[in-house]
Amino acid sequence: MRRSSEQPVAVFDSGVGGLTVLHELLVSLPTEDYLYLGDTARFPYGDRTQEELQQFAIEITDHLLAEGAKLVVVACNAASSAALGTLERYLAENGHQIDVIGVVAPATQLAVAGSRTGRIGLLATPATVASGAYERAVRAADAHVHLESVPCPDLAPIIQGGFPFDGHVVDTVREYCAPLRAAEVDTVILGCTHYPLVAPMLQRTLGRGVTLVSSGTGVARSVERALAAHHLLNPRTDEGSYRFRCTADVASFKTLGTRFLQMPLDEVTHVELAPDVRKVAV
Amino acid sequence: MRRSSEQPVAVFDSGVGGLTVLHELLVSLPTEDYLYLGDTARFPYGDRTQEELQQFAIEITDHLLAEGAKLVVVACNAASSAALGTLERYLAENGHQIDVIGVVAPATQLAVAGSRTGRIGLLATPATVASGAYERAVRAADAHVHLESVPCPDLAPIIQGGFPFDGHVVDTVREYCAPLRAAEVDTVILGCTHYPLVAPMLQRTLGRGVTLVSSGTGVARSVERALAAHHLLNPRTDEGSYRFRCTADVASFKTLGTRFLQMPLDEVTHVELAPDVRKVAV
Repeated sequence: MRRSSEQPVAVFDSGVGGLTVLHELLVSLPTEDYLYLGDTARFPYGDRTQEELQQFAIEITDHLLAEGAKLVVVACNAASSAALGTLERYLAENGHQIDVIGVVAPATQLAVAGSRTGRIGLLATPATVASGAYERAVRAADAHVHLESVPCPDLAPIIQGGFPFDGHVVDTVREYCAPLRAAEVDTVILGCTHYPLVAPMLQRTLGRGVTLVSSGTGVARSVERALAAHHLLNPRTDEGSYRFRCTADVASFKTLGTRFLQMPLDEVTHVELAPDVRKVAV
Repeated sequence: MRRSSEQPVAVFDSGVGGLTVLHELLVSLPTEDYLYLGDTARFPYGDRTQEELQQFAIEITDHLLAEGAKLVVVACNAASSAALGTLERYLAENGHQIDVIGVVAPATQLAVAGSRTGRIGLLATPATVASGAYERAVRAADAHVHLESVPCPDLAPIIQGGFPFDGHVVDTVREYCAPLRAAEVDTVILGCTHYPLVAPMLQRTLGRGVTLVSSGTGVARSVERALAAHHLLNPRTDEGSYRFRCTADVASFKTLGTRFLQMPLDEVTHVELAPDVRKVAV
């Protein structure tokens, strides 16, 4: 299929976290149309296997292509870490000339470029840490930079659940940040798109001397470059539209999404992807 | 009264907006104790007269001194603009050797230092714009910088009310930002402590090329310098405590404050200040 500049940019995530990436796209490229898919029925992705994440990424990308996407942003660290290469091969083999942009490389580049001490921390879901994707990206950028990785199994579910900010949440965040404080990192990669939503809490726990890095602005730059290279930037001058899809309850996605994105989510519709064949881990 | 390093740092605002300033203090100076007062019964300050704001500032500061404050942060742009000089004179005349730190100077310095084009915007409440405090501060910093000021009567009440992010709110924000877009400013001062809470919405409306500046980090630096100069930094190494006072409903302050500050507000108590003698504007 031939792509045209009038087609939408598609963004997907396991839930509402990817809206932090969509936000940066709306700031940088306001004249584009956007289609966002939150795979809320299968949230969280953070404890899925690499194979599951690859399967999910292909299913969702097929759906987004059928909806006319001209570019796909994998706005989920776990899916980017596990499935970006697989997804690129799958698309090439099926004759789709379409750019797929993940979140690991942009965040890593910002962190490595910004760190003064060469000691960087990573807060991410267990799947993202287990994939080793950030470890490889940091090594490739600068072999002398130390990456201290902390898997945070509970943080994305707490945020997706509307984060109550009670004593339990504060203790959980403190526990996740403790190894980073001990390692004396000066930069921390927020390796899950949900985490920028609790940046104030993380900044307070890590202190003034630590710079938090998320992938949003870097992803927006990559998308802009990719669209420009293929003459696919939307030529209109007024604001584009935005539509949302989710795989579970529409009402709760709308409530949480409106709060996170700070704008009304008018069109949210339910889509049915493949049934969840997830096995309970033993 | 002699001040000691063990006394709390006091912060006051008309509502929950000043919590954005308290947040920056907690990041920079975590070992201090804090006492925050939100004058929610008389919110909003944005359409008060200069005389009313001076009276309120003196009343509240008297209360905070009685509670043992070693330094007072006026974390409200309207009160800082109208009452900082009056407050300093009142304290000096009454023999209180205590630093009072406002929010206008720190934000102005950051904006003037950061602007490349010398065209700066100001979003603030009507009282703050009418006071001319930012106009004077910008002129003093650099006579060749142009300041485009926009009074935003509805924005702080929308945020204090829990900002629903519906179409009306988006239209309101768009209307306030229109003169700044027309003036082609490259930097916008968020001249009300409530506004950082809707920074994503403002950034989207103003676009990537505009830098948003708020006073929080600058205020934290000023407080640190003032305490250090008088040997009043708390010498403890563990985290300090924080307590909250408000002049209206405790439960709604607690709910909104927890959400804004991203941490539990355990101790919130009601205080009664002077009765509100506000006259209805005609």
